[in-house]
Amino acid sequence: MKGLMMNRPLKIADILEFAASSHQNGEIVSVRTEGDVHRTTYRETARRVAQLARGLRDLGVDVGDRVATLAWNGYRHFELYYATSGMGAVCHTINPRLSAEQMLYIIKHADDQLLFTDLTFIPILESLAGDLPAHLRIVVMTDRAHMPNSKLPGLLCYEEILEDQPQTIVWPDFPEDTAAGLCYTSGTTGNPKGTLYTHRSTVLHALLLAVSLPNVLQEGRKILPVVPLFHVNAWGLPYAAPLAGASLIFPGPALDGKSLFDLMDREKVFSAWGVPTVWIGLLNQIRAEGRLPAGFADVVIGGSAAPKSMIEAFEQAGVNVCHAWGMTEMSPVGTQGNLPKALDDLPPAERIDRKCAQGRRLFGVDLKIVDDDGAPQPHDGTSPGNLYVRGNTVTAGYFEDEAANADVFDADGWFRTGDIATIDADGFLTITDRAKDLIKSGGEWISSLDLENVIMSHPKVMSCAVIAVPHPKWDERPLLVIQPRDEDRPDKQELLDMLSEHFAKWQLPDDVVYVDGLPLTATGKVSKLTLRKQFADHALPDAV
Amino acid sequence: MKGLMMNRPLKIADILEFAASSHQNGEIVSVRTEGDVHRTTYRETARRVAQLARGLRDLGVDVGDRVATLAWNGYRHFELYYATSGMGAVCHTINPRLSAEQMLYIIKHADDQLLFTDLTFIPILESLAGDLPAHLRIVVMTDRAHMPNSKLPGLLCYEEILEDQPQTIVWPDFPEDTAAGLCYTSGTTGNPKGTLYTHRSTVLHALLLAVSLPNVLQEGRKILPVVPLFHVNAWGLPYAAPLAGASLIFPGPALDGKSLFDLMDREKVFSAWGVPTVWIGLLNQIRAEGRLPAGFADVVIGGSAAPKSMIEAFEQAGVNVCHAWGMTEMSPVGTQGNLPKALDDLPPAERIDRKCAQGRRLFGVDLKIVDDDGAPQPHDGTSPGNLYVRGNTVTAGYFEDEAANADVFDADGWFRTGDIATIDADGFLTITDRAKDLIKSGGEWISSLDLENVIMSHPKVMSCAVIAVPHPKWDERPLLVIQPRDEDRPDKQELLDMLSEHFAKWQLPDDVVYVDGLPLTATGKVSKLTLRKQFADHALPDAV
Repeated sequence: MKGLMMNRPLKIADILEFAASSHQNGEIVSVRTEGDVHRTTYRETARRVAQLARGLRDLGVDVGDRVATLAWNGYRHFELYYATSGMGAVCHTINPRLSAEQMLYIIKHADDQLLFTDLTFIPILESLAGDLPAHLRIVVMTDRAHMPNSKLPGLLCYEEILEDQPQTIVWPDFPEDTAAGLCYTSGTTGNPKGTLYTHRSTVLHALLLAVSLPNVLQEGRKILPVVPLFHVNAWGLPYAAPLAGASLIFPGPALDGKSLFDLMDREKVFSAWGVPTVWIGLLNQIRAEGRLPAGFADVVIGGSAAPKSMIEAFEQAGVNVCHAWGMTEMSPVGTQGNLPKALDDLPPAERIDRKCAQGRRLFGVDLKIVDDDGAPQPHDGTSPGNLYVRGNTVTAGYFEDEAANADVFDADGWFRTGDIATIDADGFLTITDRAKDLIKSGGEWISSLDLENVIMSHPKVMSCAVIAVPHPKWDERPLLVIQPRDEDRPDKQELLDMLSEHFAKWQLPDDVVYVDGLPLTATGKVSKLTLRKQFADHALPDAV
Repeated sequence: MKGLMMNRPLKIADILEFAASSHQNGEIVSVRTEGDVHRTTYRETARRVAQLARGLRDLGVDVGDRVATLAWNGYRHFELYYATSGMGAVCHTINPRLSAEQMLYIIKHADDQLLFTDLTFIPILESLAGDLPAHLRIVVMTDRAHMPNSKLPGLLCYEEILEDQPQTIVWPDFPEDTAAGLCYTSGTTGNPKGTLYTHRSTVLHALLLAVSLPNVLQEGRKILPVVPLFHVNAWGLPYAAPLAGASLIFPGPALDGKSLFDLMDREKVFSAWGVPTVWIGLLNQIRAEGRLPAGFADVVIGGSAAPKSMIEAFEQAGVNVCHAWGMTEMSPVGTQGNLPKALDDLPPAERIDRKCAQGRRLFGVDLKIVDDDGAPQPHDGTSPGNLYVRGNTVTAGYFEDEAANADVFDADGWFRTGDIATIDADGFLTITDRAKDLIKSGGEWISSLDLENVIMSHPKVMSCAVIAVPHPKWDERPLLVIQPRDEDRPDKQELLDMLSEHFAKWQLPDDVVYVDGLPLTATGKVSKLTLRKQFADHALPDAV
């Protein structure tokens, strides 16, 4: 029997309308590429979003059109999120760290009609100019006074698009499964693959995230997304923050430890969100200053596994660590690692151990772990399985990519994450490894993640990676790649001794190499693909 | 363009599955009709809900069937919510305070197949026995040892239905607009009218409520719903609490001040939810004890407008008042009255004034105020209008009641609340009156609510109501009905003097009468309909 309640489409535009009408004190603070700090409110932003949408319409943008962005975290980028989706168009965020080849591929694959760019990325676009589609128009996200002197033809000016447009708009109605956003993952093989978010998935993700993190996503809180708007919608914060009435502090391009510390300190940021690599810099700055940024109480770490030493450093400084896990294909948040209040009395060391896990699922995100034959594995905290996910915030298939879709869903329609994980009786998920990062030595698996976690606690180690190197006898053997904190680099034997306290002899790396910096993927994770290529011919000491 | 995300039906069963897997410490504590206190967890409850659903299936309950309940707040009532909706049946909660005639009407109108009752209500059912539909089977919510000796034929025992059933179940899939719950409002004229909630409306309401009250609806909190499960789903708490990981403390039948105080004190209840009438008793007990129940920090007041004196008493005692507003037809919560953090520094008196308003809308609940011709009124905090609402949690029409549906929606499909309200620039809604409670004197409107609000602050007044009495010259004139706190009743002139500080002479009541108690509706609101009948022939002093 059908019930008798109204059925209104879940729409992204309603989030900003709500914030504008009910969260009048909600702010957006942005460090601009122009160099200054810009402050506005959700209320004022709603007016500019109306102007922008009207301007886009005048430029010929239509329902379903893709509008690309190449921009840092700032209020104009936020405005584009809402103006495009509000009118039924699709906001396609481009990761500026992609290779030229990848960038051209996705601009063409998405069939972008307009491309909005920050001043910073004009040189990138100039280098691509000859290969960009002829119909693609480029808008520079600045005012007339800051427009660049560029060889790019027909550059449009962002502020001029808004100029003289009325500050109100009646948003069109459309079904809630209408496309709203498009984000490509660079992946490690093949072409980038696009996840096409809907209004329903986006609004539900915002609700689920807010319900899961009530202490952060609430009225009056200030949240700094270091995680970029150009990747997976900055983990959903541009939607969840205005929904909850929290303010957004956008850092712009400068993400080094000192810039972040100063901005957080000045704006009294309560919670900062980002991948582990950015927190190395912030923790260094906190050590240098001998104090936390004012008001800093919470950090959300995701994107790749947070090393135990990082969790320890934050928690000991009095900053709550929420170790989260997700994927571009999941909008992205799948689990959050805050501990239940019942564990408040856990000894600090045990708390930190629990926080090394990726936490419990968000409501609405179903998890299953299965063996290679698809048989469900027990939730006992020790039995690993291939992790599959399902839910309204999970992709149903990559955008126009039949080949990629062929092998990522199981027979019941669950999405294969590519992670290996355990789940315990209390619902805590632990990612034990990326399937493709496991090292297969003599028919046995070695977890690179476990080894890295131990090494990261060494005081002289800034960052590290364990990768597989081909081996004539064992097929693959682990190699430990170290980025030392400074010139005083940790001794090879010392590192191996440290590992041998926790691992069997055959699991220890065969060699240690030192590098000045680790290569990062476009989303700030250590690029093991690059490292594997770099060290493919590395001669292991005992390899015959 | 359609997006490419999974589309899973929002289902109520997923809430309890989630709480069972992720909020293992979430508790349900119930004062039982049997007299003792019962404790369980969401995890254990999920097992019993599986057993109950299997038992219902064995009793022949099918998808779409209506299953009635006549019960207090307790874990078995909670189990029925989830077992019926989980299998695609409809939980029809019956208000035991309805008249025999109304109760029979709705049992027949809903075509209930089974009726679950607490021991308390056996006498009511016995009195109706001859008129109950022949096919209606009755289940007593107790174990075999407590089964009553009753003349009712074929009584079934709740615990026996669960016995020997497996503790797991695979819930069926169905569309999210499937009916899940049915609640009738007694109304003031005509037959009761039923709101038929869907899985979508119920899950969204839980999410919206949790996002709106993050400080209460969070893991580890203990919440006491005084508001009954038999009316509008206890304001959504049976869904929002397990979703958020909060525990539920169910008070059973005893709702007097002392019983509530003792239970809250013992269980360290953080937040208690109910209509103004129940808080009079609790506040008296708090005064008598000279302290708050341990842990008590928050009270949600709705159902009818909270008097200023009540808000003051709680806030001065250190209990945050969330003055909420909603309707059965709205699932029910429409607005919540917590103040934004930006107003933290407001002087106490101004805080309380702001809290006398009904607060800001929940995300997803659209409000509009219009004049009698449908023209939108400004949101300036002073222009009143007829309040209409729209959203996924709002009724699209009463259950099988064409007549009632004919005049409650406007041309654009908005639902007419029957309230008169203002909305200010910050989104705060103030219900100035129920349209039907306004007094029309000489062509001018007099607000009964405004008058009552002032009188309620008189120390000798326990409760009061202002009603319209027919008048030969002015059409209607206000009469003030007073329930004194004790024998020392407030003087008539004193009350009128108090009012004349705030109101024009023509707005003052023409007379004051004293009663031992005010008649309540089935949902605990003062029944103005009853009072108007009672005093229809009251001779006003200056009526010619």
